[in-house]
This record gives sequence, structure tokens and C-alpha cells, in this order.
Amino acid sequence: MAEPTPVVGLDVNALEAAQLLAERRLPALVVVESNGAPHAILPASQVVRFLVPGYVRDDPTLARVMTESMADRAGEKLGSKRVRDLLSKDRRELPAVNHDDTIIEVAAIMARLRCPLVAVMRNGELIGVITASRLLELALPRR
Amino acid sequence: MAEPTPVVGLDVNALEAAQLLAERRLPALVVVESNGAPHAILPASQVVRFLVPGYVRDDPTLARVMTESMADRAGEKLGSKRVRDLLSKDRRELPAVNHDDTIIEVAAIMARLRCPLVAVMRNGELIGVITASRLLELALPRR
Repeated sequence: MAEPTPVVGLDVNALEAAQLLAERRLPALVVVESNGAPHAILPASQVVRFLVPGYVRDDPTLARVMTESMADRAGEKLGSKRVRDLLSKDRRELPAVNHDDTIIEVAAIMARLRCPLVAVMRNGELIGVITASRLLELALPRR
Repeated sequence: MAEPTPVVGLDVNALEAAQLLAERRLPALVVVESNGAPHAILPASQVVRFLVPGYVRDDPTLARVMTESMADRAGEKLGSKRVRDLLSKDRRELPAVNHDDTIIEVAAIMARLRCPLVAVMRNGELIGVITASRLLELALPRR
């Protein structure tokens, strides 16, 4: 039931990771360690935080008076960081399931951790992910 | 910059909403009030909670010993509920922006509320949504 997913390493350039999210319109990327083990998920909304200058995050009314010349600066800013710099301190661990777990086991983990996707492992290797909507497709009768 | 999005009313059958999430592989649906105003987002992961019996949520090890005949029962269970029954008590309000807000204003709201999408309004009407990855596409230089 797993589906292939694009992954990025912890030391990949942050701008490249953001461009991958943008091009494929992904809600999140799977971040892996150098041995390929899943480390965390990086939601696109977490990357958006780095587009916003700190003083605007503190006072959102300032956003109104800023000009739109942001793209280059956002690109520069991200280009000087790595994926590991984008992960939130309370990083969301990517819940992992085994490729032979049942739909109910996967649903139970997803429900408990309120996560939008889980990593699927076989012999310690990431073989793909299952998103919440994919799980609904597998579990519900078709109409 | 807004993109069209499927919406469901608060009183739509919960199974229908879940099937819509599944068929279109959506991470979330926009829930609207009877006057069309956005009310909340319903993430697919929230719907997954209703696939899992309460005693399994309390003791996930029980998932391992359950059989896979879950689809029909999950369908029955959802079919007797409405969308409003699926929303979590601490329901996530859908942040709304105006159709003429700047990219930075949208990014600031998304960053502050850590939400994966925002509703876009024009003259009090929902005209679409902007997801986090769509915002990255708009804000970043292409490679």
C-alpha cells in the first residue's frame, strides 16, 4: 500500500528542498539521515516560515507595508541554509510502519499521532509513504 | 494566486466527505457554513481517527490482532455521521485572506498559524485556497 515519495538528506540545500516542494506541490518532504533512515517530515508550511522576516512574524501588520520584491531575498536566505536548519526544534518525528502492517495498525498510529503521513519500512529501508487520504482510499468502500 | 478547492457543508454525510478526500487524494477539505462562509478545515488525518475503534486508540497493540474486515464497518460508522461530527473540538479555524493581499501577508499568516492552507475571500465569498507549496512556488525563484 506504500507509495514512492521524494526524500531529501539533512544536509541538502534548503532552497533546493523548497523548490522540490513547490514544483511537485507536495505538502511535506521526508527527511532522511545519511544511512537512508527516515529522520523527520518537513511540512511546506514550516518552510514558509523562512520566507517571513522575523520582525513581520512578531508584528504581522508590517506585512502590509512591505513590497513584493521578496522572491530573490527569500531565495538567497534559503540558499544559505541546509534542510536541518529548517526543521522545527520540536521536530515532528516521522512515524514508521512495517510494510506488512495492517490497515488498522497504520490507521491507529496515524490517529494517535495525528500525522498526515507515515513512512513505510522494509528490512530497515524506507520504501515509501502512506498519506491519510491514501489510507481512506484503502479502508473505505468506493461509491 | 488562489486555486479552486472542493468544499463540503457542515451537514454533508461524513462518508461522502471521506470518499471525496480519498478519491481526489486531498490532504484536507474546506468545510463551509450554509451561507458559504468558510468554517474550518477537515484534515484527512482527522477522518482517519474515525476508522479506529476507541479501544484500539487506547491500546494500539490491539490493532495487531484485528482482522482486515474493517472497510464495511468504517463505512457504516461514517455513513451515520455528518461532517460537523468529524471536526475536532479544538477545531482548526481556517485562516482567511483577501484576494488582494500580498504574498508576504499570506506567508505571515501561514507562518504564524502554522497552517497548510488558507482560504481566499473576495467580497465575503470563498474563491479558493492557497496551499503552503503553492505559496513557495509563487515566492521562490524557479530553478
